[in-house]
Amino acid sequence: MKHIFIFFIKFAFQLIYINKMKTKYTERISILRNAMSERGIHATIIPQSDPHQSEYIADHWQVRRWLSGFTGSAGTLVVTDSDALLWTDSRYFIQASDQLNGTGIKLMKDGLADTPTITQYIIDKIPSGATIGIDGMIYSASEAENMKATFASHNIKIDDTFNPIPQMWLDRPSLPDCKIIIHEEKYAGESTNSKIEKTLKAVASQEAESIFVSALDEIAWVLNIRSRDVKCNPVATSFLYLSPKGSTLFIDNAKLTDETEQYLANCNVTTAPYDSIKEFLSNLPSNEKVLIDTPRTAIAILPILGNRIVKGQSPIILLKSIKNETQIKGTRNAMIRDGVALVKLFMDIEIRLANGEKISEVEVGKLGAKYRSEGDLYFDESFDPIAGFGAHGAIVHYSATEESDATLSPDNMFLLDSGGQYFDGTTDITRTVSLGNTTAQQKRDFTLVMKGHIAVGSMVFPAGTRGAQLDALARQFLWKDGLSYLHGTGHGVGHFLNVHEGPQNIRLNENPTTLMPGMITSNEPGVYREGEYGIRCENLVLTIPAFTTEFGEFYKFETLTLFPFDLNLFDTSIMSDDEIAWVNEYHSMVRERLSPHLDAEQATWLAEKTAKLTR
Amino acid sequence: MKHIFIFFIKFAFQLIYINKMKTKYTERISILRNAMSERGIHATIIPQSDPHQSEYIADHWQVRRWLSGFTGSAGTLVVTDSDALLWTDSRYFIQASDQLNGTGIKLMKDGLADTPTITQYIIDKIPSGATIGIDGMIYSASEAENMKATFASHNIKIDDTFNPIPQMWLDRPSLPDCKIIIHEEKYAGESTNSKIEKTLKAVASQEAESIFVSALDEIAWVLNIRSRDVKCNPVATSFLYLSPKGSTLFIDNAKLTDETEQYLANCNVTTAPYDSIKEFLSNLPSNEKVLIDTPRTAIAILPILGNRIVKGQSPIILLKSIKNETQIKGTRNAMIRDGVALVKLFMDIEIRLANGEKISEVEVGKLGAKYRSEGDLYFDESFDPIAGFGAHGAIVHYSATEESDATLSPDNMFLLDSGGQYFDGTTDITRTVSLGNTTAQQKRDFTLVMKGHIAVGSMVFPAGTRGAQLDALARQFLWKDGLSYLHGTGHGVGHFLNVHEGPQNIRLNENPTTLMPGMITSNEPGVYREGEYGIRCENLVLTIPAFTTEFGEFYKFETLTLFPFDLNLFDTSIMSDDEIAWVNEYHSMVRERLSPHLDAEQATWLAEKTAKLTR
Repeated sequence: MKHIFIFFIKFAFQLIYINKMKTKYTERISILRNAMSERGIHATIIPQSDPHQSEYIADHWQVRRWLSGFTGSAGTLVVTDSDALLWTDSRYFIQASDQLNGTGIKLMKDGLADTPTITQYIIDKIPSGATIGIDGMIYSASEAENMKATFASHNIKIDDTFNPIPQMWLDRPSLPDCKIIIHEEKYAGESTNSKIEKTLKAVASQEAESIFVSALDEIAWVLNIRSRDVKCNPVATSFLYLSPKGSTLFIDNAKLTDETEQYLANCNVTTAPYDSIKEFLSNLPSNEKVLIDTPRTAIAILPILGNRIVKGQSPIILLKSIKNETQIKGTRNAMIRDGVALVKLFMDIEIRLANGEKISEVEVGKLGAKYRSEGDLYFDESFDPIAGFGAHGAIVHYSATEESDATLSPDNMFLLDSGGQYFDGTTDITRTVSLGNTTAQQKRDFTLVMKGHIAVGSMVFPAGTRGAQLDALARQFLWKDGLSYLHGTGHGVGHFLNVHEGPQNIRLNENPTTLMPGMITSNEPGVYREGEYGIRCENLVLTIPAFTTEFGEFYKFETLTLFPFDLNLFDTSIMSDDEIAWVNEYHSMVRERLSPHLDAEQATWLAEKTAKLTR
Repeated sequence: MKHIFIFFIKFAFQLIYINKMKTKYTERISILRNAMSERGIHATIIPQSDPHQSEYIADHWQVRRWLSGFTGSAGTLVVTDSDALLWTDSRYFIQASDQLNGTGIKLMKDGLADTPTITQYIIDKIPSGATIGIDGMIYSASEAENMKATFASHNIKIDDTFNPIPQMWLDRPSLPDCKIIIHEEKYAGESTNSKIEKTLKAVASQEAESIFVSALDEIAWVLNIRSRDVKCNPVATSFLYLSPKGSTLFIDNAKLTDETEQYLANCNVTTAPYDSIKEFLSNLPSNEKVLIDTPRTAIAILPILGNRIVKGQSPIILLKSIKNETQIKGTRNAMIRDGVALVKLFMDIEIRLANGEKISEVEVGKLGAKYRSEGDLYFDESFDPIAGFGAHGAIVHYSATEESDATLSPDNMFLLDSGGQYFDGTTDITRTVSLGNTTAQQKRDFTLVMKGHIAVGSMVFPAGTRGAQLDALARQFLWKDGLSYLHGTGHGVGHFLNVHEGPQNIRLNENPTTLMPGMITSNEPGVYREGEYGIRCENLVLTIPAFTTEFGEFYKFETLTLFPFDLNLFDTSIMSDDEIAWVNEYHSMVRERLSPHLDAEQATWLAEKTAKLTR
C-alpha cells in the first residue's frame, strides 16, 4: 500500500515535471512570436544549421532543439503567428512525436505524400506581401537566394537579419572552446605554407585575389589544425580569410595557446576574434576581389562584401580531396588498426551470442568505439554508428536510441556502419552479417549487393570519368531483381577530417567532378526490405592510375578497408568466377595485413572468416 | 606520238580548267570581302547550316560549299579582311586539302592540338572593337548568344544580320520544292489534330499561348507530312506556328497540292509563303506569349518576337520520341524488310568474294540501298552508308568517296553502318563482319564490344534512369582492356523521320532526359584501332516496361533490329553463359522473324549465320 502511494506521488510529480518541461517550449515559442510581431515578421524558419554549414553542429547552435525540445539530428522548425511546426524525416517520426507532445508544435512527417514541403506550406499559408524572417548567418547564400527567388514569385519577402535568439536564450552554451591542435606534417604530408600557396594560386586563376572560407573542414585542411568542437568532425570553429598580403583566422582566443598562435604566425596567419569577421570584411579595400563559395557561405556575408564578391567553388575542396602519399600511407595504416578493432568487436558479439549473453545495438556501437580507441592514433568516432538489427537495418540512417534499442539474436542479420577518426586517416565501413539463420532471399539479396560492390571495386575507367557514370554498375544486379536503393553508392571521405566530403561522389545524380587519383570514396551499395532487414556492404576505395594505352590514361580503385565480408551470406550460384576470385583475393589481403597485428585466437578467427569461398 | 600530244593538250586544258575552277572561289571570297568592308565587318563565319538547324541541308543553303569549293558535310569557313580559313575534322583532311588547293583558303585541321578553335582564332587575330558578321537566319539563338557573350568579354561585337550571299550568288539553287506527302494515320498512329492539341496543351503548361517551330522533323511529326527536300531526312522545308486560335504552315506553294492544302485546312492549319515568317511574327499581338526553343530557332527570329518570347524546350521533341503502338508495330515490320535486304546484301558480298569478283565499299553502299528499295514501303536511305573495309572501319564517320573507295578482301574485317526510311519506320544498323582471316585480337575486341552491347541490351532499370547512367555498362569491358570509343553509345531514332533525334540518348555526357517506354534508341558500342580496323555493333532498342515491385517501376529494352552478328568473331572464352545465351536467343528471334520472308537458299544461309554459339 505504502509502495503504491509512493509510486503514485512519484508519478504525479513526474507528470507535473514533464508538463513543466513541455510548457517551457510553449513559452519560448511565445517569446519568439513577440519578437516576430515587433519586427513585422509573419513566419520564421529555424533549420538545424550553423554559420559553417556543418553536418554536425555544436550545442551553441542547437537553436531548433532549444526552441522545440526535439533532439534529432535532422529537422526544421517553422513558426508562424498562429502555428508552430517541425519537419523531420521517417527515422525521427516516433521520437519527434514523443518529444513534441505537449509543446503545441505540430509534427510534419517529411517525405510522406500528404506532407507539404516547407516552401509549399509557406506559399499556401502565408499571405501575399508578408515577410519571412531567417537568421542569415545560418543559411547558405545559395539556399537563401533560391528561397528568396521562389518566395518572390509569390510576393513573399525574406528578411535574413532576423535573429532574436541571443536576447531570448540567456543560458545559451558558449561557443565551442576546445583547444586547437596542430595536425603534424608527418600525418598531413604537406605544409600549411604550401597549402596556402596552392590555394591562393587557384584563387588567382578564378580571377580573385583573396578567399573567405567558412567551411570548417576546409579551414582545418589548409591550416593543418584540428579540434574537438563538434562530435565526429575534428574541426575548429572559425572563419578563414586567405590573401597574398597575409591571412587571418577568426577564432576565439580560448581555443589558442602560445604554441598554436606561434605556429599560425609562422604560416603568416594572424588571429582575430571569431565574431570580428563582419567588421573585418567590411573594411577590406573596396576593389579587392574576394572569392566566396555560395553553398558554403552564409547569406549574411554577401551584403558585407558587396561588389568585392567573386562567386565560385572554393579551390580547397578539390585540393583537399586529392590525398598525398603520406595521407594515403596513413590511411592504409589506420585501416589496419580499424580492422583489428572490428575483429575484436565481431568476435566479442559472436562469443556473447554463443554464451547466451545479451548484447544490444547501442552496446555494439559503444563497444566498437572502445575497441577502436584501443588502437594507436585514435581520436574519435567518425560518425554516430548505425547498428541495425533485423528490420532496423532497413532504416538507412538508423541511430539506435534507448527507446528503439534492440537485442541481437540469431534470428536475423545485423548491419553495422561505423568508423573512426585517427591522426593518420578516417575510416568508414559497413558490414552486414548473419547471426545464425539466414534465408535464401537474404543470401540472394546480399550477393546481389556484393556483385554491385565488386563491379565498382574492380572497375577500370578512363581519366575524366564522373562518379555518376559508374553508379549504375553497383545497381545493375539489384535492378534485374526489381530491387533498388535510394542513397548514393559512394561519398568522398576526408583524411582525419569529415567522413563526408566533396567534391566527388558516386551517385544517381549528375556531378561534374571526375574521379581523380588520390581521391578516397566509399563504395556502399545496399538493399533495404522494410520491416525485414537491411543489407549494405561498404569499403573505402582509393582512385589510382591503372595504365596508359593509345586510348588514353585509365584509372582503377584500390580497396583500403580491411575486414572480411560474411562468407555465410554468399550465394555462389549467382556469382561469376571473377567475382568469387575477387572475394578470395580481397580476403587474402585482409588476412595478410591484419594477422600480424592479432593474437593467435584472433588470427584463427580471421583465418576462418577469410577461408576460400568456393562454389 | 600523236597520243602523247593529245594527252598533253588534254592535260594542259585540264590544268587551265582546274585553275579557272579554283580561281572562282578566290573571286567569290574577294566579293564577300567587299561586302564585309562596306558594312565595316572584320570577319565573317559561314557554317554548314540552314534556318532549321538541320543535319542534312538542301543545296540552297550550301553557302560554305559555294564559297570554298569544299564539298564535305562538315566544315566552317571563316573569312577575315586578310585571310580565309576552313575548319573541318579528320575525316575530311585529305579531301579538304585537295579541294582547297589553289583557292587561297587555308585548311584548319579541327581536333589537332595545335589548331585553335574558331573562337580562339578570332579572339587572337581580330582587333578589340571589331565586328564579326554572321547570318542570323542560319545560327541558332543559343549558339549565337553564347558566341556573343564570349566575344563581348573581348570587346568584339557580332552583327547577326550580315548576309550578302543573295546578292552574290546569282545562280543559287532555289528552295527545295518537292511536294509534301501526307504521312497516313495508319502509319503515324495518331491524327494531326490530336498531335496539335497535345502540343498546345504542353505549350500552355509552359506558360505560353503559341509556339513557333523551326525544326523540320518536329513540323513533319506534328502535321503528319513528309517530303524529299533533303537526302535521308524525309522532311519538308517550312516553319510552323501553332496556336489555339489557328495555326500556320510557312511553306512554298510549289510544295503543295490541292489535296495537301485541303488536308492541312482540315487540321485548322492555313498556309503562307515560306519567306513571310518575319512579317507574320512581327504582326502577332504584342502580349502573346510565344514559346521558342533557342537551340532550334534562328537568332534572327528573337528580335522579331521581342517580349513575346518564352524560352523553353519544344514539347514536340518529347512527344515525338515516345512512339505509339502503331509506330512500334510498324518499326517491327520495317525491321523484317530491313533484315531481309541485309541477308541479300551480305549473301551477295560473300558470293562475289568467293567467286573472286571485286566489290568495293561504294558498291556495297549502293547495293544495300538497292536491296532495301526492293522491300515494301521503302522511301529512302536514312543516312549515307558508312561502309569501311579494314582501316577505313576505324574512321568513325567514314564516307567512302571515289578517291578513298577500297575493295573488300578476306584480309580484314568490314564494317557496314546503314539504314532505311520506310513509311512504317526508320532503321539504323551496324554489323562488323569477318571476310576471311581474323586475328585473336580482332576476335577479342569484337567480343568486348559485344559484351558491352549485350550489357546494355539486357539491362533492367528503374523509371527515371537517364541514358548517361547506362553508358558505362557498354564500355566497362573495353575499359578493362585499355580500350575505348569516343562517340555515344546510343542516339534516339525517329519514326519515318530523322535517324538522329532527341531528347534521349546514351552518352558519356549528362543529359537530364530519362529513358521512357516507347523511345527507340540505338545501342552501338565500338572500338577503333587507327590504321588497322574498326568494330561497331549496333541494334535499335525500344524501351518497354519490365515489371513493378515494391521498389517501383522498372523498364527494359526490346531489341528491334533483326540481323545476325558474325559468329566467326566471338571469343566465347571471355563470355559468360548469360552472354552466350543472349546471342543465341537473339539469333533465334532473327531466324524466326526473317525466315518466312526468305527463299530457301537465303533461309539456309541465315540458319548457318544464326547457328548455336557454343564454347
